Amino acid sequence: MVKRYPRILFRKKLKDLKKDMEKMGKLTLKAQKDAIDSFDSYDEKLEKNVIEYGKRIDRMAVDLERTCLSIIAAEQPVAGDLRFIEACIKIISHLKRIKGLSVNIAEISRNLKDVKLPEKTLEYIKHMADIVLMMSSKSLYSFLDQNLKAAGELWVDDDKVDELFDRALSNIIDNIVEDREKVYYLINLLFLIRFLERIADRDVSIGRRTIFMVTCEREPLYEDLTKGE
Amino acid sequence: MVKRYPRILFRKKLKDLKKDMEKMGKLTLKAQKDAIDSFDSYDEKLEKNVIEYGKRIDRMAVDLERTCLSIIAAEQPVAGDLRFIEACIKIISHLKRIKGLSVNIAEISRNLKDVKLPEKTLEYIKHMADIVLMMSSKSLYSFLDQNLKAAGELWVDDDKVDELFDRALSNIIDNIVEDREKVYYLINLLFLIRFLERIADRDVSIGRRTIFMVTCEREPLYEDLTKGE
Repeated sequence: MVKRYPRILFRKKLKDLKKDMEKMGKLTLKAQKDAIDSFDSYDEKLEKNVIEYGKRIDRMAVDLERTCLSIIAAEQPVAGDLRFIEACIKIISHLKRIKGLSVNIAEISRNLKDVKLPEKTLEYIKHMADIVLMMSSKSLYSFLDQNLKAAGELWVDDDKVDELFDRALSNIIDNIVEDREKVYYLINLLFLIRFLERIADRDVSIGRRTIFMVTCEREPLYEDLTKGE
Repeated sequence: MVKRYPRILFRKKLKDLKKDMEKMGKLTLKAQKDAIDSFDSYDEKLEKNVIEYGKRIDRMAVDLERTCLSIIAAEQPVAGDLRFIEACIKIISHLKRIKGLSVNIAEISRNLKDVKLPEKTLEYIKHMADIVLMMSSKSLYSFLDQNLKAAGELWVDDDKVDELFDRALSNIIDNIVEDREKVYYLINLLFLIRFLERIADRDVSIGRRTIFMVTCEREPLYEDLTKGE
């Protein structure tokens, strides 16, 4: 019994780490949701939320990174346990970056709050934002639940985001050509779609890391994972 | 003597790690330099270099991250040694991202290779690119040499980059208004200046991490560090 005790403590540490990752992940999703909502219909309160969540996410990131390294130092984990902790270290960075991009989106939403933007462009952007928010949620839970199928789907989702990006881009360019007055605002939209696309890239990276954590494969055959849907 | 041997081995591991960080950092600088040169005057060979260096950087990143974690597991470093290894883990990510942005710059350079772009815009962009390349070199060596003064200067450099970004942005907008035919190309330039600005942000992060590694201060009073220049 005495011998087993340290292993039980180790399992507890990993379980707590996972819980904290979920907490940080959920807060990142909330920040992203409020940023997107503030673009949909600007509200100062939403922007403040994004910034407030952002500060908490930064503090959690510092603590969690330290926790990961101290578990490695104290427990010398191997194989799957080590890959889980490595994945945590990577995913903390991705979540922090998604939070940063959400702050960027909230800023752009403030810049554009009083401007009437072209309907079609808004439609593309909202569609993009919906998919990206869904991807962030999917990537987080694919990691927490070790769900390879969900992780593999992210590549397919990302293709949709890239396609919408291209359509939104040429739509914005058309509008710039038509309406010179609005160049400044439309350029804000260019950056906005780029931020959304970058969030999607981070979600794919979380999926890739999840697949490596579970299968130990660096270059997953993600086609196989998404077959038969 | 027998007792001291493991510490000597530990010091050797840290020294090797630092050498490998320098190797990876130098390769990232080369990728960035070739990307910027390919914008200056496009050459397929330069673009191929960027991609080739990129692959090597990715492989080095995987190996180096693993090395960092295995040193932590084997040696349980504390204080400054731990902060050095933590810094390596962070800086590996930054270098990888700088490499990614360099690949983006090389792609845009290819898109624009046959286009005559406005002189003034090019001037701003080249100035930005010069400062950013210098910042990447400065951030790398501030880390390797633990040079706090150089690390602190990065905030001042970054202000210059931000200022040039704003000037380039409004210059590009003016050109879009004047020359509708060139909208597509000019938008490539918008993304390009954003990529340069993002590299500068990463350089500042490397500087911030260096200051934390040396002083244990999370929010450096960087003004003090750059005084008396």
